[in-house]
Amino acid sequence: MVLHLVDSLAPLLPQAVVAVVGAGREQVEAALAGRDVVLAVQAEQLGTGHATARAEAALTGFSGTVLILFGDCPLVPSATLAALADALADNVAVAVLGFRPADPARYGRIIAEGNQVAKMVEWKDATEAERATTLCNTGLMAVRAADLWPLLARLDNANAAGEYYLPDIVMLALADGRRATVIETDSDDVLGANSRGELAAIEAVFQARSRTAMMAAGVSLTAPDTVFFAYDTAIEADVTIEPFVVFGPGVRVATGSRIRSHSHLEGATIGPDCEVGPFARLRPGTVLAAGAKVGNFVEMKKSVLGAHAKANHLSYIGDAQVGAGANIGAGTITCNYDGFGKYQTVIGAGAFIGSNSALVAPVNIGAGAIVGAGSTITTDVSPDALAMVRPAQQEKPGWAARFRAAKTMRKAD
Amino acid sequence: MVLHLVDSLAPLLPQAVVAVVGAGREQVEAALAGRDVVLAVQAEQLGTGHATARAEAALTGFSGTVLILFGDCPLVPSATLAALADALADNVAVAVLGFRPADPARYGRIIAEGNQVAKMVEWKDATEAERATTLCNTGLMAVRAADLWPLLARLDNANAAGEYYLPDIVMLALADGRRATVIETDSDDVLGANSRGELAAIEAVFQARSRTAMMAAGVSLTAPDTVFFAYDTAIEADVTIEPFVVFGPGVRVATGSRIRSHSHLEGATIGPDCEVGPFARLRPGTVLAAGAKVGNFVEMKKSVLGAHAKANHLSYIGDAQVGAGANIGAGTITCNYDGFGKYQTVIGAGAFIGSNSALVAPVNIGAGAIVGAGSTITTDVSPDALAMVRPAQQEKPGWAARFRAAKTMRKAD
Amino acid sequence: MVLHLVDSLAPLLPQAVVAVVGAGREQVEAALAGRDVVLAVQAEQLGTGHATARAEAALTGFSGTVLILFGDCPLVPSATLAALADALADNVAVAVLGFRPADPARYGRIIAEGNQVAKMVEWKDATEAERATTLCNTGLMAVRAADLWPLLARLDNANAAGEYYLPDIVMLALADGRRATVIETDSDDVLGANSRGELAAIEAVFQARSRTAMMAAGVSLTAPDTVFFAYDTAIEADVTIEPFVVFGPGVRVATGSRIRSHSHLEGATIGPDCEVGPFARLRPGTVLAAGAKVGNFVEMKKSVLGAHAKANHLSYIGDAQVGAGANIGAGTITCNYDGFGKYQTVIGAGAFIGSNSALVAPVNIGAGAIVGAGSTITTDVSPDALAMVRPAQQEKPGWAARFRAAKTMRKAD
Repeated sequence: MVLHLVDSLAPLLPQAVVAVVGAGREQVEAALAGRDVVLAVQAEQLGTGHATARAEAALTGFSGTVLILFGDCPLVPSATLAALADALADNVAVAVLGFRPADPARYGRIIAEGNQVAKMVEWKDATEAERATTLCNTGLMAVRAADLWPLLARLDNANAAGEYYLPDIVMLALADGRRATVIETDSDDVLGANSRGELAAIEAVFQARSRTAMMAAGVSLTAPDTVFFAYDTAIEADVTIEPFVVFGPGVRVATGSRIRSHSHLEGATIGPDCEVGPFARLRPGTVLAAGAKVGNFVEMKKSVLGAHAKANHLSYIGDAQVGAGANIGAGTITCNYDGFGKYQTVIGAGAFIGSNSALVAPVNIGAGAIVGAGSTITTDVSPDALAMVRPAQQEKPGWAARFRAAKTMRKAD
Repeated sequence: MVLHLVDSLAPLLPQAVVAVVGAGREQVEAALAGRDVVLAVQAEQLGTGHATARAEAALTGFSGTVLILFGDCPLVPSATLAALADALADNVAVAVLGFRPADPARYGRIIAEGNQVAKMVEWKDATEAERATTLCNTGLMAVRAADLWPLLARLDNANAAGEYYLPDIVMLALADGRRATVIETDSDDVLGANSRGELAAIEAVFQARSRTAMMAAGVSLTAPDTVFFAYDTAIEADVTIEPFVVFGPGVRVATGSRIRSHSHLEGATIGPDCEVGPFARLRPGTVLAAGAKVGNFVEMKKSVLGAHAKANHLSYIGDAQVGAGANIGAGTITCNYDGFGKYQTVIGAGAFIGSNSALVAPVNIGAGAIVGAGSTITTDVSPDALAMVRPAQQEKPGWAARFRAAKTMRKAD
Repeated sequence: MVLHLVDSLAPLLPQAVVAVVGAGREQVEAALAGRDVVLAVQAEQLGTGHATARAEAALTGFSGTVLILFGDCPLVPSATLAALADALADNVAVAVLGFRPADPARYGRIIAEGNQVAKMVEWKDATEAERATTLCNTGLMAVRAADLWPLLARLDNANAAGEYYLPDIVMLALADGRRATVIETDSDDVLGANSRGELAAIEAVFQARSRTAMMAAGVSLTAPDTVFFAYDTAIEADVTIEPFVVFGPGVRVATGSRIRSHSHLEGATIGPDCEVGPFARLRPGTVLAAGAKVGNFVEMKKSVLGAHAKANHLSYIGDAQVGAGANIGAGTITCNYDGFGKYQTVIGAGAFIGSNSALVAPVNIGAGAIVGAGSTITTDVSPDALAMVRPAQQEKPGWAARFRAAKTMRKAD
């Protein structure tokens, strides 16, 4: 969820992103690993104003506009965030984001004339007339750094909960003779996740938006409601995606490719004009070069399939480099693990791996080589050679008939 | 469907459940096998009153409240059934369940003042004024045994269809100076299954309720609409279920486990902190101990995977006992069937089964043993031993190049 | 999409179907291969009237009614098309199809009194009063051949776009003193595909109608929204289809069969009482005789499975004939491809293929024969014989313990 949020900031080209974390810190930290996000810790839960103030040290020297967002409210469009920032002006110290929920319930209200905020009021402190208004506070706001830190420093916690409330800075600014502006947004944009049901609802909105955006960008979805994207799925135009496909994080698909039904992709890079699935599972580190094919019941991880190479049926390709035009037969298994380490399999361009073979890594199959069906290959194979493990086939005439007769007799006993 | 219904009775702790069956008896009997339900047979289809009377013999000596339900109307909540039973009182002989459908159509009407029933009337016998009322009869009711059997005995079949109608007992009770109470329920609760479309609609309501209940109980569903539960699916809190998962009957999942996308589970018991799928199929008799993993394109049936044991890729594990920490390599097949009987495979704790192996049951792989990749194992393997079937690898230098040249030449002919 | 459209014509028993193609001609031609459709080419895009006139040569000698349809508008029900054709009469030269969209926007309007057309007017030429009307032109129409070609010949292109507009023939007919009738249809029936989103919406309507029709015809769908049909899917009554099933073109399923979850079928013929899946992939040329079973992670193509034959687990069956009652063990692979050609595998009735076997085609397994588990079979097997490739199993006592100790020591270094 926090990655959705960080992602929505990218179009704004933020100079810095600070995540204030309290409980669940490790999870957030792990999710943000590799992202350009500074963590600030709120050790005690003393209110939203207190939490915001935790970011000050990380922003020392920063004099621009600060957007204050919430990790469990990840769907605000970038354009809305930009509008919030742009609403600040010489005399406008704070811009707050408001919404009109179907049921205003116990949300704090924004009392405003036009877009001018007159008062921010918590529901429990509101008069009957104020409760009858419908413009509610999302909690999100924009404030310039030069205004924000002094305002936060002036907050007190003289309330029932003993907490420092962020919205109170609006009242402080108004008391100073400054102005505050409200921007309105759709309820869907500020769905919060207070339960597993609400989390699922947020995910559903995210997925619906992703599908619409993908189709608008030239991606064909035959059954949009059955395709699930990650926050960072990147798919070029003229890609077709069939039903029941799940994209985990880190997938890129180039133009002209087709992702067939019942496929699951994570951390995979698909070149142009590839075909994946049905029933393919591509795990992180999978790379398909142009025109490669991965078919049904095939798993790949940390492996490269060269241009026009094929692994069409019932195979496990792990820690492998497969050259251009190679053909991996049905039931091929790269034996990459010995219980302790993982080892590489290298298959040269144009090689042909016969069906039901096991390639015991580390092993090298030369370019143009052929491996006979059913072989367990433990030694490198020279380019253009045939390698096989093929003991003699034995036949016992009539044995099957005798076996059946004996079995049947035993049953009849 | 009948199992949904029987299940909804469990919270009421019924002293006995009697299913009156006519046509399709064998199917109902099979579905109820192993359930504490007594079957009563209605040989001729002589109406709902006649059907109810068939239950009397099975309830000899029972003097409590009888709930009369319908097998094709399985969605009535337990709380509604309890309210129906509780509505009986000294002077209230019958409690009937009413509903207000969007289109009352030709349903029988309940003419009532408040919750007091004045008249039950079939649509075809109703006056214009009665037809204009909207409270319809679901057919479900509660009656004390001491009242029910005598009332049923007094029914006649002097009507066009020549049938004994259950609702007529309400009129008999009113004529005796007793009272009848109506309880109202939602239309969704009494959806009936008169067509395959209606059956699918009932199933959809059941699934929607199951998903909501699961999330409320602490189960995370990333895409609730794509997960299908059985009537008896039991999942503990802090389990995550990804999209496109189907639960058949008899599945239990313990806390901390993750059921990944595109998985199908029936009769499986999943311990805590397990990972299943994507693309796993667990059939009846599968048991995963704590921390076990079953990965993609793996089928299990009547098999136990010990704590932290793994079967991650493209395997068939049937009639097998796998010890703690064992590793089942990609493409492993337990050969449990010889065309006549099924045989056991026992794999000791910490054993390592190399990829693409076939274990011909009955066979015993000792604890800590290693099976070399590509082996067909027919004889028991001692603990800590290495077993392998590994004929020499042969190489024919240049053979592949000559083969291609010959094939290409032939094509050019 | 064009196949949906061609299919909707079948109940009308058309004497000829002509597809006028311009851009994208190759795609349409490929889609229509094998269909009884004549192609006519519109080299320049000079308007809908010009396009229609391209069909004249292909219909030389035809004197019946011409229905003019649009390839990107495939959902018009057959009955509506029939009604359109039937609306022609002695004095009625043209029948046009109208609809009332939720948002009439810039559609051309049909100005009519009752079903009598007074005027066809493009939005840009319409008066305010005309724009306020809501009956819009779908563009579809019926005209007798004897009227159509002369009317088209009289069209001019004296308009801003310099195009020949088909609706103008209505105005010409009216000017001749003939009449034009309008038939109204639902908006859903004339959804057009001007974007990938609209294409997905058309597909969704088609799928929803297919599911309803299937259930009405006696097919059980446990979760209708998760099953996808092709335009020509033919399923008999008393077939059950579980969730997450995709039907590509050319599938027929006979009564009593069950298609289990997560299956993908294309060009497959399923006999009565078969069981398919879960997780089965049946490709074109698959034929299952009565009572056959194809289980999880099994792929079939161009192969016949005889009556009551089984391939239950993790197999690839390509270019194979499998006799009645044969059993294909888990992990069996038919090696049908040598990098150049495809070869046949023939398995006789009652044969038993042991698990994890590779059958190198061309190869013949005799009736009643048994193939031992893990065998790579390259030579024909006689009926009732046992064939196996079974080198001796070797054991190195204590090797695994020493291996682990060495690995662990190395790690500790």
